[in-house]
Amino acid sequence: MKKLINAVDTVLAESLDGFAAAHADIVTLDAERKFIRRAKLTPGKVGLVSGGGSGHEPLHAGFVGLGMLDAACPGQVFTSPTPDQMIAAAEAVDGGAGVLFIVKNYEGDVMNFEMAAEMVAEMTGRKIMKVVTDDDVAVETSTYSTGRRGVAGTLIVEKIVGAAAEEGRHLADLKALGDRVNSRTRSMGVALTSCTVPAAGTPTFSLSEDEMEMGVGIHGEPGRRRVQLAHADAIADEIVSAIAGDLGESGDAILLVNGFGGTPAMELYVMYNAARTRLEKHGIKVRKSLVGNYVTSLEMAGCSITVSLLDDDTVKLWDAPIRTAALRWGM
Amino acid sequence: MKKLINAVDTVLAESLDGFAAAHADIVTLDAERKFIRRAKLTPGKVGLVSGGGSGHEPLHAGFVGLGMLDAACPGQVFTSPTPDQMIAAAEAVDGGAGVLFIVKNYEGDVMNFEMAAEMVAEMTGRKIMKVVTDDDVAVETSTYSTGRRGVAGTLIVEKIVGAAAEEGRHLADLKALGDRVNSRTRSMGVALTSCTVPAAGTPTFSLSEDEMEMGVGIHGEPGRRRVQLAHADAIADEIVSAIAGDLGESGDAILLVNGFGGTPAMELYVMYNAARTRLEKHGIKVRKSLVGNYVTSLEMAGCSITVSLLDDDTVKLWDAPIRTAALRWGM
Repeated sequence: MKKLINAVDTVLAESLDGFAAAHADIVTLDAERKFIRRAKLTPGKVGLVSGGGSGHEPLHAGFVGLGMLDAACPGQVFTSPTPDQMIAAAEAVDGGAGVLFIVKNYEGDVMNFEMAAEMVAEMTGRKIMKVVTDDDVAVETSTYSTGRRGVAGTLIVEKIVGAAAEEGRHLADLKALGDRVNSRTRSMGVALTSCTVPAAGTPTFSLSEDEMEMGVGIHGEPGRRRVQLAHADAIADEIVSAIAGDLGESGDAILLVNGFGGTPAMELYVMYNAARTRLEKHGIKVRKSLVGNYVTSLEMAGCSITVSLLDDDTVKLWDAPIRTAALRWGM
Repeated sequence: MKKLINAVDTVLAESLDGFAAAHADIVTLDAERKFIRRAKLTPGKVGLVSGGGSGHEPLHAGFVGLGMLDAACPGQVFTSPTPDQMIAAAEAVDGGAGVLFIVKNYEGDVMNFEMAAEMVAEMTGRKIMKVVTDDDVAVETSTYSTGRRGVAGTLIVEKIVGAAAEEGRHLADLKALGDRVNSRTRSMGVALTSCTVPAAGTPTFSLSEDEMEMGVGIHGEPGRRRVQLAHADAIADEIVSAIAGDLGESGDAILLVNGFGGTPAMELYVMYNAARTRLEKHGIKVRKSLVGNYVTSLEMAGCSITVSLLDDDTVKLWDAPIRTAALRWGM
């Protein structure tokens, strides 16, 4: 295993310390490292909390800040955070208007966020609601999920709901908005190589020199099928058809081409170019774009394509100012 | 070779088309794909032009926009752009106040930018000056350079000089500022794996499972020595000592931990954490931070550390608003 680390046991803590020090103008790390939260909270606003296994950076800690999340709970690599992390984060960011959990649909995460929500409600009477994202069209159920997996589309839900929370919208409205954005968002990915979880020390899976995994999940879990390596255009054909067919609607959209961590920007822009022209043939017009490593699987080579349909409300929320470690515009 | 491309011959063109389409609010691609320039130029300002081989994205095209470059010329992968690209870019962005070329110290780039400067001056009488960056302390001369190589510190020169150009400073002052920032900036890198140039089809070099290349260049060219894989702290010790020793000064600084393309964010933050604490022992206080893939070598695993000493003028210029595809703040 070739990694820039000191020890398997300390990699998460050291990385969180580095992250908090590098972005001290935006975030603060809890003393017990249970969560990352905004350095400055906005009183009276609904608190937005997300989290999940580490190894997908910048998701979620990189999306904490004005206009997006209030806190993120980092689990061990590819492992759900624990309910006590979520409870501590919820208590730290609730300004009196309640807390919304944004959860990727993986069994461990959903179970722990549910448990945390029940315990917080019981102990403190705080209002807690949750949005579960399940944007991955690749598989209907998977290794770690009942139902579709929540993947890169989660970023879009977090951005749009984050902007709405900043406007002072109420908890139930934010929950409804999050569900609506999720229902209009679809993703699918492809892997060219595996990744290595530090604690495991060996690659999660293996692909031969001429193979790729179509529909891969963000932990390297299997997708639709293992096939021969294809050209960018052929990959974009399959993914865009799957997404557009499943959406069943056309219109204006965000196109997110997300690198899994080991793919050069040059290739991501080749995929973006291929996806964009194909979406237009399906009547989907790309109004907003994001290309880069946002929801990664450590150093896995490959990418996912996410399409999220926009309306007059959500396009304004997407454009609203944001200041996080990983996304920043309008301020 | 596992890459998300259609063909070796078209990867650069398709990637540029994708880049220009994704960031059409910020940049425009020249019809012959000779350069990327700002979508909206500021009249009367000195034009800032950079460029170099592709494969280092987001450098340089990702740094075109308000507060940084006016144009960037993309060469083929790891190959200097040609003088006719630089001439076309200079003519497109000169608003009457002259043009400053910012050039990484590699023989091909320096020769071509010099040739372009002479030809533009001769043909049109435009004023052209250049800043050559040579921040890499790893080696005194290298495979592709006479003298030190220009690497990730180039980003810092481009940002600070870009902000000063936006203020309306004159060509000679910008040249002096660029030289000064370069003289106070030092970098050094380490590679854990090689990268594969699409046209070559095989890795540039090879490292065994327990080796790393200390002082590697951004094309995978050899550094100081090939040694056994070490812990993050030991790597940071060596790099920070080399940088601090060579700077010979302390004070406030920017710390840039730059991923080469194949290293997860988690590891970059471990390295940031290690570098920051070590710099403080050398009396260098980290005032500004940047962590991510900014000056890459395709999918190479590894990172570089850059330290740039700040003064009252340059810290303000660093903080000045910027809006490019890859860096954006204050607006």
